[in-house]
Amino acid sequence: MDTNVAVPPRLPANSAPLTPLDFLIRAEAAFPEHPAIIDGDHRFTWGTYARRCRMLAKALTAAGIARGDRVAVLLPNTAPMLEAHFGIPMAGAVICTINIRLNAQAIAYILDHSESRILIVDDQFRGLAEQALSLAGRPVRVIVTGAGAAPWAEDYDAFVDGGIDARPDDMVWPESEWDPLALNYTSGTTGNPKGVIYHHRGAYLNSFGQILSFSMATHPVYLWTLPMFHCNGWCFAWALAAVVGTHVCLRRFDGDVIWNAIHRFGVTHFCGAPTVLTFVLDASERAAPLPHPVNVMSGGALLPSLVWRRMTELGFKVQHVYGITEMHGIFVSCAWHQDWDQASPQDQARLVARQGIPLVVQSGLMVADSETLQPVPADGRTVGEVFARGNLGMTGYFKDPAATADAFAGGWYHTGDLAVVHPDGYLEIKDRLKDFIISGGENISSIEVEEALHTHPGVACAAVVALKDDTWGEVPLAFVELTAEWQGRLTEADLIAHCRGQIAHFKCPRRIVFSPVPRTATGKIPKFELRQKAARECGPDR
Amino acid sequence: MDTNVAVPPRLPANSAPLTPLDFLIRAEAAFPEHPAIIDGDHRFTWGTYARRCRMLAKALTAAGIARGDRVAVLLPNTAPMLEAHFGIPMAGAVICTINIRLNAQAIAYILDHSESRILIVDDQFRGLAEQALSLAGRPVRVIVTGAGAAPWAEDYDAFVDGGIDARPDDMVWPESEWDPLALNYTSGTTGNPKGVIYHHRGAYLNSFGQILSFSMATHPVYLWTLPMFHCNGWCFAWALAAVVGTHVCLRRFDGDVIWNAIHRFGVTHFCGAPTVLTFVLDASERAAPLPHPVNVMSGGALLPSLVWRRMTELGFKVQHVYGITEMHGIFVSCAWHQDWDQASPQDQARLVARQGIPLVVQSGLMVADSETLQPVPADGRTVGEVFARGNLGMTGYFKDPAATADAFAGGWYHTGDLAVVHPDGYLEIKDRLKDFIISGGENISSIEVEEALHTHPGVACAAVVALKDDTWGEVPLAFVELTAEWQGRLTEADLIAHCRGQIAHFKCPRRIVFSPVPRTATGKIPKFELRQKAARECGPDR
Repeated sequence: MDTNVAVPPRLPANSAPLTPLDFLIRAEAAFPEHPAIIDGDHRFTWGTYARRCRMLAKALTAAGIARGDRVAVLLPNTAPMLEAHFGIPMAGAVICTINIRLNAQAIAYILDHSESRILIVDDQFRGLAEQALSLAGRPVRVIVTGAGAAPWAEDYDAFVDGGIDARPDDMVWPESEWDPLALNYTSGTTGNPKGVIYHHRGAYLNSFGQILSFSMATHPVYLWTLPMFHCNGWCFAWALAAVVGTHVCLRRFDGDVIWNAIHRFGVTHFCGAPTVLTFVLDASERAAPLPHPVNVMSGGALLPSLVWRRMTELGFKVQHVYGITEMHGIFVSCAWHQDWDQASPQDQARLVARQGIPLVVQSGLMVADSETLQPVPADGRTVGEVFARGNLGMTGYFKDPAATADAFAGGWYHTGDLAVVHPDGYLEIKDRLKDFIISGGENISSIEVEEALHTHPGVACAAVVALKDDTWGEVPLAFVELTAEWQGRLTEADLIAHCRGQIAHFKCPRRIVFSPVPRTATGKIPKFELRQKAARECGPDR
Repeated sequence: MDTNVAVPPRLPANSAPLTPLDFLIRAEAAFPEHPAIIDGDHRFTWGTYARRCRMLAKALTAAGIARGDRVAVLLPNTAPMLEAHFGIPMAGAVICTINIRLNAQAIAYILDHSESRILIVDDQFRGLAEQALSLAGRPVRVIVTGAGAAPWAEDYDAFVDGGIDARPDDMVWPESEWDPLALNYTSGTTGNPKGVIYHHRGAYLNSFGQILSFSMATHPVYLWTLPMFHCNGWCFAWALAAVVGTHVCLRRFDGDVIWNAIHRFGVTHFCGAPTVLTFVLDASERAAPLPHPVNVMSGGALLPSLVWRRMTELGFKVQHVYGITEMHGIFVSCAWHQDWDQASPQDQARLVARQGIPLVVQSGLMVADSETLQPVPADGRTVGEVFARGNLGMTGYFKDPAATADAFAGGWYHTGDLAVVHPDGYLEIKDRLKDFIISGGENISSIEVEEALHTHPGVACAAVVALKDDTWGEVPLAFVELTAEWQGRLTEADLIAHCRGQIAHFKCPRRIVFSPVPRTATGKIPKFELRQKAARECGPDR
């Protein structure tokens, strides 16, 4: 189309970098008195919240933070964590959230690798931070929240108060929507963490993706059960500003805390791993019924169908989701079909056990052969690797061009997850690529075996890995943690027999080890470690 | 931030052009059986709708339509109009919607100026199209819907059926999100219409803006009371696919038709000029009560507060909105504040009479001096011109670089509308720049005078313009159309006296002319014509 428009199409009048920072400016302008943050005794309106973010930005600039610098935070889900999500980027800097469950060595590694010049830390993690800083190879200016100044750290509130209450125009705005916004270190089960670079465009678009996936109307009340150091709280740290919601912060929680928050603050939405839902279920008998439907996104681990059913019966609307740090968090969700209302409970459980379809902002998704990139048939049986492309892809891994090139080889992001595609186009994750068990030429999904084990009421947690076997190549071995009341009442043979009632015999665990199942700092089960433990303790060479 | 990422950030794996065409592909993949279109006896699922769009695209490509070509449509709100919104762009072409209320000369002008190579026309407008084509200076291939082939035109269904059912990958996708998507001719009240170029990015973002502004959940049922030839139905022609809604088409309608559609199809949302709401009110006594809340966006003309109140009492949630063709449609809406629930009816009426705040996707908006671009104070009194910038701005005017440069002068789009900003940041349109009346040095908003006239039950329609006056420079003159029952029962003096009870004396009409108020093809009142008429019939030189 020869537009014959002498001026080029990209002008200030018709283009601006997409950035979630816009959401805060608008929320403040339109709803300055609406509650933005409830954090213990603190109550911030959107006006106050935005002002504090601007002051934090100005204080960071005054402290020498320049465009593109990294500022690390070691914080639980508190008001300063929410302020950091806007204040750091409004200084032009990149927010690097650090998992509070990491050890000092890992934190020191991230501080060094990210070259963070400032660390904002909660007083609760003072000891951890001091230890990490002593291991870190470079000087880091430390700001501590919730405790006042200390010899080794400045007081956060005093630091913010030292900032000027500047106008939005005086912030350091991104020059391009592809500018870096956040740096999130993945906690693989092996090796050093990799720093995933988020861009303003991806976070902006995924905010809309999440809002639409949740059918989130204006002014939701969002409970922070999901750590914000996971993909910036699946982008909800920013998205809530787009819908002018209310953040309910939680430093720590259990099932009772969640029920109390729902009743006290009118919580409408929360997110979390399936473990969070089991907390809710365990506390449900002590709680009054839900006053209104509460929407939940759950992902990050196997969502047992029994958990989904019981939550649904209590009035929660639980949506199964699938995400990955490299994709700005959640990019697939199990959108409900109206005709599923009429399905049998068994069919409903089967349908919602699937991860689903791409969010509306995620254009490219396929399940394909890992080598040839040929898509698998949508038969619900053929396993392939999940590949994604489109606007939710990270910029790349920080200072690791080789890993970036590998991850993006062939023009697609390689998730490393294995899945099938059902005839209705819905994706179902079968396993991590490296957790798949190949036994006598048959593929066994460790997740399927775990799901079978979980149907036994005595199983609190099950983790299945491959055990080398001279005959079959590999066989499934299960680590099983029993509930208190079943301790000592269940044998290996009992549980294998139970599995045989559920799944094909060749898929059933050949061995079961009753022991506590370990978790990484991000709550993942370290399958790599378990495979080593299995080889050591149960393998043919033991 | 030196990312040390050897690969550039924009790769297929992490970027794709933003385009509303994605919405259709996803809707089809995820919800192929969900009802997409109800058009008389026709019922199309999302699967069928998407397939027909792809076939239309392929048929257009086979007909020689190439990337950037224009395809014009002269259609009411029917299924083919919805198919054109995806099928034409999926051929890489630009959809040029033509107002069905234009005369043959204006249509011929648009066909010539847009250089449209194909015209899709509804059989209802066969005569009009034939006349326009005879006036047009270039050959146009004509495809007619709803009537079978004719000597001068091909049959639309046969044309679509001639297309191949190709895969989404085989469509002509935009190379850049700034590629042209639509060409919408504005119907100014003077001069030739100007062709406003929409880009994929703007339509994509405004779709989300509209959905969020409406708090639209998944699967809305949308009634087409708003013509799709107005800003592509305020972008809802595309946005409905993002939320997998159901389009209810209407070839023509009155109040009863709207009520019937609400009850029969479960309509949840519709849009329209305030006139549409008066139709609904007039038919309300014959209708059963609303079965559920129905959301309405209304804009494009003065929304009388009485209309808003009565609609609200009936259970409609009416949101006042403000848009302009050059901004991809609506970009400002009067978002409700929860504390307005407690306001008096008078205060509520005053609050919702305002146009409001920018949509979340529209970053830049100001009311400022037309010459200096200095923002006016937010005092609810100082009038300035509305300026906008950000991602909703058009590419420019087709083949009119001078007009584009004027419209974007100073880095802002000049709307030509006059407004005040209230202390809460909400915008209130006072008038079109050229419709403002300056009397004895005082500014008079013709809209304010019209609102005062509208409070009289006998006034069906009022239009106020400036009349040259030797003493005052200008004075307000009103053209007033009376309701049937008040014909002959109201004098000029009565109505001026009524106004004096509402607004300052100097603002009251000096003269009132009882006559039908003319409308342009887009339903706007041609103030320019009325000013000329006033000068001719009532001016000092008459």
